[in-house]
Amino acid sequence: MLRTHTCGELSLEHVNQEVVLSGWVQRIRDKGGMIWLDLRDRYGLTQLLFEEGKTAANVLETARSLGREFVISAKGQVIERLSKNDKIPTGAIEIRVSEISILNPAKLPPFLIEDETDGGDDIRMKYRYLDLRRNPVRANLQLRHQVARHTRAFLDELNFIEVETPVLIKSTPEGARDFVVPSRMNPGEFYALPQSPQTFKQLLMVAGFDRYYQIVKCFRDEDLRADRQPEFTQIDCEMSFVTQEDVLNTFEGMIRHLFNKVKGIDLPEVPRMTYADAMRFYGSDKPDIRFEMKFTELKGEDADLTSGKSFGVFDDAELVVGVCAPGCASYTRKQMDELTDWVKRPQIGAKGLVYVRYNADGTIKSSVDKFYTEEELKKWVEAFDAKPGDLILILSGNADKARKQLNELRLEMGSRLGLRNPDDYRVLWVLDFPLLEYGEEENRWFAMHHPFTSPKPEDIGLLDTDLGKVRANAYDMVINGVEVGGGSVRIFEKELQQQMFGILGFSPEEAQAQFGFLMNAFEFGAPPHAGIAFGFDRLCSLFGGVDSIRDFIAFPKNNSGRDVMIDSPSTISDAQLTELSINVRQQN
Amino acid sequence: MLRTHTCGELSLEHVNQEVVLSGWVQRIRDKGGMIWLDLRDRYGLTQLLFEEGKTAANVLETARSLGREFVISAKGQVIERLSKNDKIPTGAIEIRVSEISILNPAKLPPFLIEDETDGGDDIRMKYRYLDLRRNPVRANLQLRHQVARHTRAFLDELNFIEVETPVLIKSTPEGARDFVVPSRMNPGEFYALPQSPQTFKQLLMVAGFDRYYQIVKCFRDEDLRADRQPEFTQIDCEMSFVTQEDVLNTFEGMIRHLFNKVKGIDLPEVPRMTYADAMRFYGSDKPDIRFEMKFTELKGEDADLTSGKSFGVFDDAELVVGVCAPGCASYTRKQMDELTDWVKRPQIGAKGLVYVRYNADGTIKSSVDKFYTEEELKKWVEAFDAKPGDLILILSGNADKARKQLNELRLEMGSRLGLRNPDDYRVLWVLDFPLLEYGEEENRWFAMHHPFTSPKPEDIGLLDTDLGKVRANAYDMVINGVEVGGGSVRIFEKELQQQMFGILGFSPEEAQAQFGFLMNAFEFGAPPHAGIAFGFDRLCSLFGGVDSIRDFIAFPKNNSGRDVMIDSPSTISDAQLTELSINVRQQN
Repeated sequence: MLRTHTCGELSLEHVNQEVVLSGWVQRIRDKGGMIWLDLRDRYGLTQLLFEEGKTAANVLETARSLGREFVISAKGQVIERLSKNDKIPTGAIEIRVSEISILNPAKLPPFLIEDETDGGDDIRMKYRYLDLRRNPVRANLQLRHQVARHTRAFLDELNFIEVETPVLIKSTPEGARDFVVPSRMNPGEFYALPQSPQTFKQLLMVAGFDRYYQIVKCFRDEDLRADRQPEFTQIDCEMSFVTQEDVLNTFEGMIRHLFNKVKGIDLPEVPRMTYADAMRFYGSDKPDIRFEMKFTELKGEDADLTSGKSFGVFDDAELVVGVCAPGCASYTRKQMDELTDWVKRPQIGAKGLVYVRYNADGTIKSSVDKFYTEEELKKWVEAFDAKPGDLILILSGNADKARKQLNELRLEMGSRLGLRNPDDYRVLWVLDFPLLEYGEEENRWFAMHHPFTSPKPEDIGLLDTDLGKVRANAYDMVINGVEVGGGSVRIFEKELQQQMFGILGFSPEEAQAQFGFLMNAFEFGAPPHAGIAFGFDRLCSLFGGVDSIRDFIAFPKNNSGRDVMIDSPSTISDAQLTELSINVRQQN
Repeated sequence: MLRTHTCGELSLEHVNQEVVLSGWVQRIRDKGGMIWLDLRDRYGLTQLLFEEGKTAANVLETARSLGREFVISAKGQVIERLSKNDKIPTGAIEIRVSEISILNPAKLPPFLIEDETDGGDDIRMKYRYLDLRRNPVRANLQLRHQVARHTRAFLDELNFIEVETPVLIKSTPEGARDFVVPSRMNPGEFYALPQSPQTFKQLLMVAGFDRYYQIVKCFRDEDLRADRQPEFTQIDCEMSFVTQEDVLNTFEGMIRHLFNKVKGIDLPEVPRMTYADAMRFYGSDKPDIRFEMKFTELKGEDADLTSGKSFGVFDDAELVVGVCAPGCASYTRKQMDELTDWVKRPQIGAKGLVYVRYNADGTIKSSVDKFYTEEELKKWVEAFDAKPGDLILILSGNADKARKQLNELRLEMGSRLGLRNPDDYRVLWVLDFPLLEYGEEENRWFAMHHPFTSPKPEDIGLLDTDLGKVRANAYDMVINGVEVGGGSVRIFEKELQQQMFGILGFSPEEAQAQFGFLMNAFEFGAPPHAGIAFGFDRLCSLFGGVDSIRDFIAFPKNNSGRDVMIDSPSTISDAQLTELSINVRQQN
């Protein structure tokens, strides 16, 4: 018997019982003939006691030979501790050890196995199995398990069926790059790994499954950023005979359920915002609404409070737009210079920053005093609904660019003002996305969501006249400025789907070759359907209050797509290549 | 609103309510001015009623334009049926339709969407989304969902954590063929898709996760048989600080839980059999114990009732072994000839079949009366413990071959005698597998389970002296003659793991290059651990009482690894190949 109890469950009620515990040596203190050893497992820590004169000599000797992270098994009696430790559940007891055995010794780990470690990212990735021993990292994965569990419980209750869709599918030209898999049995042909189970879940709707979900791995061969992984996990869902409203209500229910079960938080009703408003008032399709600071336009479609005063920058600008930072009028000149440099960084790309201080004493001071009278600036202050003590920050130029830049500045100010607390959760639906976006480089239209998204019925006429104006029944769920999910009402009529592929530049033959199976399926009685997919890794990291999804993946890859622990990818043998009918190209 | 109710929930309590239903047209009867339409969705069937004179003319006209599998939405009043249908839950009511709309018309399906269909395998695979509409097929996938649900519930309750392990891993030479994935970012290098998460779950044990599980897709690029798929699903589990006994008890608990929850069956305690006994008494490591008919050896290690009577076939045989088929003494000469031909088929490969009829009147008649006296045959009958009316069937030759052949014959007789009822479930543990098996062709030893399996401690000495005799702490769960799961206690010491790789023909460098990450991990405090994996598709097919796993996979591939519905695998573009730094080899 390797253990009778775990290291997290013994308390005063077990006093005098003989127990066996197994686990890892967390730390040892050897002082004045007494040895205290903290034994660790997933469930907690328990203190083992060895005492000269009371503990057998060979047991003492073994105890003194132990190092950190040795795996041991110890038998002994549960006794009450003299000095209790209130910080851990087992802090009232300790084990007077009578027998001990070393199950496996351990080399000194390359970094500390403690909540705060001294190991850098690279070494912790290489020894991921040691990093996973640390409580915060293990807690992340336990949280992930809980999120999955409660997701399934919620959807099962609503009659959703989890269906596994294939991993070896077909490469398609639309969307991100596919990972491909050469087929040995079909030489010269390749499977692709799914970027999402999109077409399969739609086929399940055609098959009458009515409500489908799957927590499923997806794959994108894209250049990686810190928060992207080549393989990632989705909560993938689809429903039949529903409108957009049904989908929004169902998954608002799901997110509320998850917040309640996982975080103990009762979310209020989730507000909704159109894409147009999100862009206009936040310069982003995923606004962080933990704080206000909405955009105010001094010059734009509905206003012009800046032109004709000889300030060329604003006169030439398509848009003059700003945010009001509460209580920041007292920013020093140095702080303003630093902020101006910040918006001029290449990542942001603004040409300059105009500010208006609405001082606590009611006076107004701006960086454009040369061009605008106090009277005129007062109108600005009113437009911003600023309070004395506020600081107005203004950008200008091309409308799209200025909005993007101001979005960054708004978020930065929110952070500086401490308005973006990770424990404060604000969920938002963003609705009415454009169906299409124009790729200037490629000189063609792209589907903003994907080619299966339905235009709004009232906008279908625009498909023939003004593609840029067509809105989709598409929706994103945004939490704290992060897109955690998105979906759409789907096209379910063959003709409309064909028209859509045509708009995206497919010839009828190409469309048929790539997606014929779906369009054919639509001819055999496809129901109206709609769905959504959530980024599961991202959702978990949000619940964990951590920015990086990598911390919520057991064995992540680095930014070059490598698993440095197992050293993958790697070369394969010539025999394997031959069997697969492929060659590796020589690199020049 | 596309529906207020599903097609499976209305009953007399809803009479007079106005409802909206949506679904597929299952069938229409148009007779004497009345139209009855069965509307179908996942939840059931509901009868819609249209009546000349009472139903508006345009609604009647639309109803008459409908065909099978049209998707419609209908509004109407729930009324009590005159002639009730007790066979369906909604059989007491029907809907008097006031409004109807066609949501999507349907072409005539290429086969009947009924429980019994007229479609062949190929056409049903091509139109899988239509086949999935049929109740029995959908029921299979609903069953699968239930098995997954109850598996997770059981393991969650026992503190197992579901952890997702990577799909893009590293190719390893041991085991079956890997599917590989070229890495664009690491030219000339490849990921492999996992045949199982074996090394990752062991690393999770090293990481202290203690109890891990995952319902996970795995991949094997093997030539396919009817019951194999290139991608399949496992219930993958691992535990720390456990003995074999703990694993057996835990997963006996799981299978009992599943039978109870999914089938309503309370399983008795699961019997255990050693591999040696399984081979000796059933000629198989996965005996079907729904029926007895254990092997009896007339000539073997412990007996010789056949030699020296001038019957050369038996005199030259290493083993003479048979089974007693109850009540089959009355088989006609023709039946015996047919059975002899059956065992001589190339798939079985026996040279002949000897039989002994123990007639109901107590007389004995055999095909070898020329060589053996009635006295001698009587001893055979006693050895078999045969009853009057039984038929003894005997094979001989090389021991391994004769056992394999007799296993086939035993199963065939079991089937013919109706002793293999798919609703009768007999679960069995097979234990003490050999650690190694010798590959005659390759002239080396192979791991019978996998290279991470621990030898029995008492057999470790044999690693230096008699490899073929070393038994492993390995176990299989067998249900009705089908292996549904298997696992082992793992090696957790670096030296033993190194020794094992050496035995399997790895040089120390090769072992380090391929599995260094695991052996290194063992140096940092690896706990004793053990695990098991269940074939999830197979388990579901067993619960469904069906032989083929394909029926329990939403979108299976055919025997050439093709998905004929989406036409995958397929060629990819030259641009893709270039990006991936690979060429397709020209076929000669």
